[in-house]
Amino acid sequence: MSDQKHHQASGTSDQHVSAGSEASKGPSRRSFLRAGAASSLAMGAGLLAGNKAAATGDPAILELQDWNQYLGEGVDARPYGTPSPFEEHVVRRNVSWLTADPISSVNFTPLHDLDGIITPSGLCFERHHSGIAEVDPAQHRLMIHGMVDKPLVFTMEDLKRFPRENHAYFLECAANSGMEWRGAQLNGCQFTHGMVHNIMYTGVRLSHLLAEAGVKPKGSWLLAEGADSSTMTRSIPLEKALDDCIVAFAMNGEALRPEQGYPVRLVVPGWEGNMWVKWLRRLEIGDAPWQHREETSKYTDLMADGRARRFTWVMDAKSVITNPSPQAPLMHDKGQTVLTGLAWSGRGTIDRVDVSLDGGRSWHAARIDGPSLNKSLHRFYFDFNWDGKPLLLQSRAIDSTGYIQPTKSALRSVRGENSIYHNNGIQTWHVKGPGEVENVEVS
Amino acid sequence: MSDQKHHQASGTSDQHVSAGSEASKGPSRRSFLRAGAASSLAMGAGLLAGNKAAATGDPAILELQDWNQYLGEGVDARPYGTPSPFEEHVVRRNVSWLTADPISSVNFTPLHDLDGIITPSGLCFERHHSGIAEVDPAQHRLMIHGMVDKPLVFTMEDLKRFPRENHAYFLECAANSGMEWRGAQLNGCQFTHGMVHNIMYTGVRLSHLLAEAGVKPKGSWLLAEGADSSTMTRSIPLEKALDDCIVAFAMNGEALRPEQGYPVRLVVPGWEGNMWVKWLRRLEIGDAPWQHREETSKYTDLMADGRARRFTWVMDAKSVITNPSPQAPLMHDKGQTVLTGLAWSGRGTIDRVDVSLDGGRSWHAARIDGPSLNKSLHRFYFDFNWDGKPLLLQSRAIDSTGYIQPTKSALRSVRGENSIYHNNGIQTWHVKGPGEVENVEVS
Repeated sequence: MSDQKHHQASGTSDQHVSAGSEASKGPSRRSFLRAGAASSLAMGAGLLAGNKAAATGDPAILELQDWNQYLGEGVDARPYGTPSPFEEHVVRRNVSWLTADPISSVNFTPLHDLDGIITPSGLCFERHHSGIAEVDPAQHRLMIHGMVDKPLVFTMEDLKRFPRENHAYFLECAANSGMEWRGAQLNGCQFTHGMVHNIMYTGVRLSHLLAEAGVKPKGSWLLAEGADSSTMTRSIPLEKALDDCIVAFAMNGEALRPEQGYPVRLVVPGWEGNMWVKWLRRLEIGDAPWQHREETSKYTDLMADGRARRFTWVMDAKSVITNPSPQAPLMHDKGQTVLTGLAWSGRGTIDRVDVSLDGGRSWHAARIDGPSLNKSLHRFYFDFNWDGKPLLLQSRAIDSTGYIQPTKSALRSVRGENSIYHNNGIQTWHVKGPGEVENVEVS
Repeated sequence: MSDQKHHQASGTSDQHVSAGSEASKGPSRRSFLRAGAASSLAMGAGLLAGNKAAATGDPAILELQDWNQYLGEGVDARPYGTPSPFEEHVVRRNVSWLTADPISSVNFTPLHDLDGIITPSGLCFERHHSGIAEVDPAQHRLMIHGMVDKPLVFTMEDLKRFPRENHAYFLECAANSGMEWRGAQLNGCQFTHGMVHNIMYTGVRLSHLLAEAGVKPKGSWLLAEGADSSTMTRSIPLEKALDDCIVAFAMNGEALRPEQGYPVRLVVPGWEGNMWVKWLRRLEIGDAPWQHREETSKYTDLMADGRARRFTWVMDAKSVITNPSPQAPLMHDKGQTVLTGLAWSGRGTIDRVDVSLDGGRSWHAARIDGPSLNKSLHRFYFDFNWDGKPLLLQSRAIDSTGYIQPTKSALRSVRGENSIYHNNGIQTWHVKGPGEVENVEVS
């Protein structure tokens, strides 16, 4: 299948010339391009008037690059591929002052560097309570016990003998945007909204496994427990467990990543991420919630009067503009501009996303693009002609139940300012001009 | 947010016990499990009768593992994540005798290790004609010229100012399964069918860019050219270019991988992969095909009479059972079994997949699961109770046009045995027993 020699031999023929084939009879590509091509090349003057790089005389057009001239790496080089070296800035990041300890900590998805609805597996944010458990799948077991007819233990191979399903679901940490409760603080959507990811899971319905064990009539709650050394536990109503929960062993086509619970995690669609127990090893059926740490002292919503709402599991409709944003400002002066972002709801699909350029005074319907899947991230775009003046960007999601994402002030008027969880308020970015965007609030 | 100390302090409390919380009042988890738990734990005797690993006394249940006891890696460890070390066998592989030169060569997607419909970016097969071009996106340009009103050159930033779209499309090399034309040869679906992948692309409709340049009335063909040193070129009818082709810069949420054409490639939905020019640098409009190497001496179908069919662009409906298959045999004796595979069509969606356990004598409807997207891989499952006896497994795809995937002998009766391209014949796997599956043909 090699045609490398052929190309080397025919480098000056009509069939394999570089840019400018109309006049390629000369001795070399390079001299042709220098002599004749530039005058016929110009950027469209209208749509992209701000463009400078592609103007006449651009050396990137006139000169051959190394990759045009030399052989590249072969197929043996990377049996498991990695991103381009030019993308090495696209990484998960943490906030050093937010948590002192990287083992029991969190990092954030670089939403401003991504597009589409799938979060790349290597860039899904992490939240661990005692670091990443490196589990040997051959030694891993999942136990179902408690109020069941027949306690069961499953190997990974056992789990893979039950009927499988595939679903794309977002996972959002209940504390996502939590640092923004009391005002604009973190300068970048990676940090304000990056505790969310969207993964295509493959796994087995929890209802199949529970049917195999036989839940006793009084069973109404499920306890899920992880195999890491924090032994993460959460109580889940049996109704939800039987509805759409999945015991997942694959993400985005391949085995779960270690930081996402390899070899098996619980998927609790639309509900706060802390309940999606990773490294899942135990499911207990009971008749009441267990009132464990993660559903009492943590992951409850402290109200203005000092009382705490608990069992606030569902992640309500939310959206954020990912570009432009503080880490990804507009780099041109004016003209045709793409604004894009993400919207999601734990209660279904997203019906509509509105975008404001003036801090919420007027709104425009954004275009939702790509598959609109239940409890999955939705990608929206708003294509507009920027006049180069400052903008106050906002987005507002409306989900399939009719719920409208609230403003931050509306949220605070109901919930006070004590909470760090379930902040789904509207985010504002102040585009000051080319190269500068800031996290702000508007009254 | 750290609760590591809390967990260490409360390790023997009710709230954070390991398997067997009902009786966890004793001094340690481990002694409880050894003493009391085993008798109440047993695998379901019916559905998974073949299971041995999870039987009473399994040390994986009775003994705490390292990951239950010690802190794991923290969030700083891998800003861009990687698979579990236990998955290091999941890699692209080449066939050493197939092509002598790894630079101008091919490797194969490990389909038998994957699930769902998305191919992980690091595992998408590669086919290069002069290795992987490592392109600096700041120095990359895309030129549109030829029969246009206004020749244009775009930087990557320019391209990102046009309206974007997201679509999952399969890409299949025309030579996928080519080595199987004359009989069963390669023992594994990675090698027989692994020149296919399925990616969620983000990019700009080619029609937007061509509208900007203004195609002259006589323009009816497009030449696409890559910036690698092989200067890959293919002719594409303008009708297709204007229909659904995309100039893509993102895959599965992140920037294109280098081996997939970073920073920009052409996406030609449903058509053979060779046309999806990577490292795309030039689009020329003309009024006839260019008759370049890749559409004359290569990527044409040599018929029995010595004539060659050309411009056979569309990849017709095809399917393959990925599990069980030679690289992934059944590991249990009998009982509940999941058979799974992939189906796709370059003409639309997949309406139905049939599965045979007896070499095509009788057929059963498989379950298609996950999003059914246009010109995208479809995942199918067939859940059955294996009696432990030998099987001759086949799958047969029917697409939304009503086209039925042919048998290999039907294909050969029309096309002869000279070709290596466009083999979409039905594949047979011979399950000989636990642990053994072979690539065979049935008459």
